[in-house]
Amino acid sequence: MNHSVAKPRRGRPPKSPRDDEDTRAALIRSGTEMLTEQGFIASGIDGILKRVGVPKGSFYYYFPSKEAFGQAVMAHYGAYFASKLDRHLSNTRLSPLHRIEAFVDDAKQGMARHDFRRGCLVGNLGQEVGGLPETYRQWLRETLADWQRRLARCLEEAREAGELSRDADCGRLAEAFWIGWEGAVMRARLERSVRPMEVFVRCYLDGLPR
Amino acid sequence: MNHSVAKPRRGRPPKSPRDDEDTRAALIRSGTEMLTEQGFIASGIDGILKRVGVPKGSFYYYFPSKEAFGQAVMAHYGAYFASKLDRHLSNTRLSPLHRIEAFVDDAKQGMARHDFRRGCLVGNLGQEVGGLPETYRQWLRETLADWQRRLARCLEEAREAGELSRDADCGRLAEAFWIGWEGAVMRARLERSVRPMEVFVRCYLDGLPR
Repeated sequence: MNHSVAKPRRGRPPKSPRDDEDTRAALIRSGTEMLTEQGFIASGIDGILKRVGVPKGSFYYYFPSKEAFGQAVMAHYGAYFASKLDRHLSNTRLSPLHRIEAFVDDAKQGMARHDFRRGCLVGNLGQEVGGLPETYRQWLRETLADWQRRLARCLEEAREAGELSRDADCGRLAEAFWIGWEGAVMRARLERSVRPMEVFVRCYLDGLPR
Repeated sequence: MNHSVAKPRRGRPPKSPRDDEDTRAALIRSGTEMLTEQGFIASGIDGILKRVGVPKGSFYYYFPSKEAFGQAVMAHYGAYFASKLDRHLSNTRLSPLHRIEAFVDDAKQGMARHDFRRGCLVGNLGQEVGGLPETYRQWLRETLADWQRRLARCLEEAREAGELSRDADCGRLAEAFWIGWEGAVMRARLERSVRPMEVFVRCYLDGLPR
């Protein structure tokens, strides 16, 4: 695309590559906000463009397709969440099981900070997966498998530290955590309260094989 | 509305009260199918009318508003689910904890039978609650509270039968079940497999205080 055309026109992209990157990042940020609030089907591309102040005709300048835009949002969210998770699960100042509690506390604060309007992108898209591109289903499954591996490592440390019984199946327990987690986040939004997340994690931790 | 008008017109409602009731029931059934598959936002009223073969103009003959239609679908689903739940949780031929397993087995079969396309109406609507009428949030909360009371009674029976320890907090444990349950149903659809429901219920039952 030629940026040096003299005559301005509607939907014209910004002039410098730097601006392009900023706009692209702003679209991804705004898309992440809207998709954690509403899921994909209710979040029209139009609303996202409007929020960022990008003319409607410019969308395909930044992304080759709506599907690609969704993928960019998922990648952005995935990186953000994995780093949050790592920050807690690798915090050796806490015992492995207390790290899980610290992660949940952080997530609870995040939910309350956004007035329980925003949930988990994975849960939102997971709920409407039947109507989404197959690449999204793949990404959701891989992302959950990745979180599961990270948590399983933490549970293994808990087992080594004697916080869990020696025969604890850490992979399966980690799988169960994320299965319930999405339910807890959904319910917290419904109740506009962190209580469901508390009840979930308390029941989960109390039920671990000691 | 006058049914005796001689001149037929588009969107004209059926002639006898009997037909009206049948059509209304068919709309509710079809709405329940679509809403368990997709949630409210993606399920256009148009698609539901088309599926039942009702002309678009007739919708407001059967329901005063879209919100009222959603409420009729929720009431229909609520009655269906409560009766399924009761059938299992009151089955005294099984021990109380085995009744919970039987309910989960039934739900797993239902998921597989519909090829993992249909989920739980409560989970679907719960996920998009931010964009739905406030009466829906109320219904979702009341419905989950009702399921929780039914399950708590079963867990109390388990406690009386010695399947659970005497200090088990049955209300809280029942709350935790439904929190995780919605996550398990969502994940089963995502994975197109009953495994998440199995992992969830196994972890839940293994973790109960004995």
